[in-house]
Amino acid sequence: MRYVVIMAGGSGTRLWPLSRRGTPKQLLPLAEGASLLQRAYERAVRLVPHERVFVVTGASYSHVVRAQLEDLPPDNVLGEPMGRDSLNAVAWPAAILAARDPDAVVAQLTADQLIDPVDTFVEALELAYTAAETHSSIIVTLGVVPSEPHTGYGYLHRGSAWSGHQDVFEVIEFTEKPAADVAAQYVDSGEYWWNAGMFVFRADTLLDQVAELEPATHATVRELAAHPDRLGDLFGSLKKISLDYAIMEPLSRGQGSARIVAVPLPVAWRDVGGYPSLMAALEPDDAGNVLSGPGKTVVQDTADTLMLNLTEGHLVAVLGVEGLVVVHTADATLVTTRDRAEHVKTLVDTVADTVGLDYI
Amino acid sequence: MRYVVIMAGGSGTRLWPLSRRGTPKQLLPLAEGASLLQRAYERAVRLVPHERVFVVTGASYSHVVRAQLEDLPPDNVLGEPMGRDSLNAVAWPAAILAARDPDAVVAQLTADQLIDPVDTFVEALELAYTAAETHSSIIVTLGVVPSEPHTGYGYLHRGSAWSGHQDVFEVIEFTEKPAADVAAQYVDSGEYWWNAGMFVFRADTLLDQVAELEPATHATVRELAAHPDRLGDLFGSLKKISLDYAIMEPLSRGQGSARIVAVPLPVAWRDVGGYPSLMAALEPDDAGNVLSGPGKTVVQDTADTLMLNLTEGHLVAVLGVEGLVVVHTADATLVTTRDRAEHVKTLVDTVADTVGLDYI
Repeated sequence: MRYVVIMAGGSGTRLWPLSRRGTPKQLLPLAEGASLLQRAYERAVRLVPHERVFVVTGASYSHVVRAQLEDLPPDNVLGEPMGRDSLNAVAWPAAILAARDPDAVVAQLTADQLIDPVDTFVEALELAYTAAETHSSIIVTLGVVPSEPHTGYGYLHRGSAWSGHQDVFEVIEFTEKPAADVAAQYVDSGEYWWNAGMFVFRADTLLDQVAELEPATHATVRELAAHPDRLGDLFGSLKKISLDYAIMEPLSRGQGSARIVAVPLPVAWRDVGGYPSLMAALEPDDAGNVLSGPGKTVVQDTADTLMLNLTEGHLVAVLGVEGLVVVHTADATLVTTRDRAEHVKTLVDTVADTVGLDYI
Repeated sequence: MRYVVIMAGGSGTRLWPLSRRGTPKQLLPLAEGASLLQRAYERAVRLVPHERVFVVTGASYSHVVRAQLEDLPPDNVLGEPMGRDSLNAVAWPAAILAARDPDAVVAQLTADQLIDPVDTFVEALELAYTAAETHSSIIVTLGVVPSEPHTGYGYLHRGSAWSGHQDVFEVIEFTEKPAADVAAQYVDSGEYWWNAGMFVFRADTLLDQVAELEPATHATVRELAAHPDRLGDLFGSLKKISLDYAIMEPLSRGQGSARIVAVPLPVAWRDVGGYPSLMAALEPDDAGNVLSGPGKTVVQDTADTLMLNLTEGHLVAVLGVEGLVVVHTADATLVTTRDRAEHVKTLVDTVADTVGLDYI
């Protein structure tokens, strides 16, 4: 049967002070009143019934996840006792599902983006499920057809149509985030797609690859699937490594027994990892300002500035500035530039060091 | 007898959102934990006993003034029912004091500045009192010996020593705020002092000049002194005009029967009318940042920036900016540049128009 696993982990320090240790960005109401997780869940239930949707997240966020996704069975929230990077966020749920259903086919989806239109997303995922169900030797990745030569994403270089499947393609290579000129070449060529970080696979196929390439992780996640009570004991022993680095890149180079294929995802794909991308996802006024949130905002002689005021009853007023990011929450206010907003993590580290953890 | 009248009126919109309709800047804790009014009162009681200190302020601020100046007799707070500019803030108290004490000599002092050292201030005022007591035909003004060619003050052009008094000088002319090159010439000449807006005079001498130059005002303030219960009726009928324009400038041109003389005030004189001057009055760190207030502040890669955080328990964090002014209060946050900070009034007008009077 088909399943969806939504990854909603990560501390999201790039969106501090909106995102906090207890509220990562996927749980913030950034998507027109809903959270990115709620939007991801809405997409997931277009693919499978809600009892076959799982969310893997930090254990400390589990209660918020359950509160936001009211009709999700509470046991479908898989709380990691600590961050252990993306390999485990894929392998652990896969082991749980494989133990329940030997024919489990999993769509491992992210909750970091705004995706439009959802119908196109659903069509692409249906195709990916079908491919993974038909061929036990493949892992299907989704390639976002690029709208611009973005330098903030990895790309995948797609090859020929795969094994006669229309719209399923070989993957020649995964690439790191490119320089601007390289990204432009990629997009011009028509052969490069953004690596969406979304995959569809038979659970047993994925686990076989983990067994071949990261055997210790494989043994541990199988043990965890059989003995959920050992989570606290064992999770911390898992190696911190990304799925791409541990599995996908080796497979694309011919290691492992499975092959990676790609399905195109021709959607508007807006990452909201940081303030600049959040700003790009919202509607600016004539001066290029984006004003958002339930609090009051007033701007004068101001351009290209993002103002998020999360505090109802509080006023944020800005005069004569350009290219700033101003974010106000109940207990913390951030002022920075659009250029520096991607690097707010360094400021968060300073906050942690100087005023302590209360504000992060 | 000697009296002091401290003027503590004005809405102080240049310090919004610190200053509000109910809390003008003189009542804010801008002077190392005390308000400018409290500092002015400390200076006043060096000159006269506290029962001979009076404060003229807006009626709506009277209760705050009384709370801040605990040993000031409550009746010594003179609350103007509405703003009527500086002539009335001088003439009305003068009429009240003249009615009580025909020999009242009044030092009319401002509460807008940080003054250092206070001993020097006291010496200059003692000299001014003595001159005004000795000569019934003069109004003594205080001239701050300039530390720089400031373009934000009016200047007074002093002439020769007056009538044999060492350190009392004729005043040739009051000038408007000068252009930068003119201000530089003034300071180089050694003949120009900043117009402090502080005066010492016999109450009856001042009232005689008002009778000659603004007879309607004279009649009204005499009536108010005789019938305090008519304040609500009559105050609104007073002409809105400044003391300088109505009295001091005409006297300096030879109109009226009294003459203006000046006593030098060789003190550090720091106006805190707006954020740039407030910033200049506070101690910057090595990067030129000034961080102040009971709330927490964190700066990183930031220079020449003023951060005032009045909210205890709230954090204001700034990353990668230069030359900004960030002011946080319980219900409003301002972000602007040092260049624009003098013009925050235009923003306050917009706030009033768009979100209403709650925040101003």
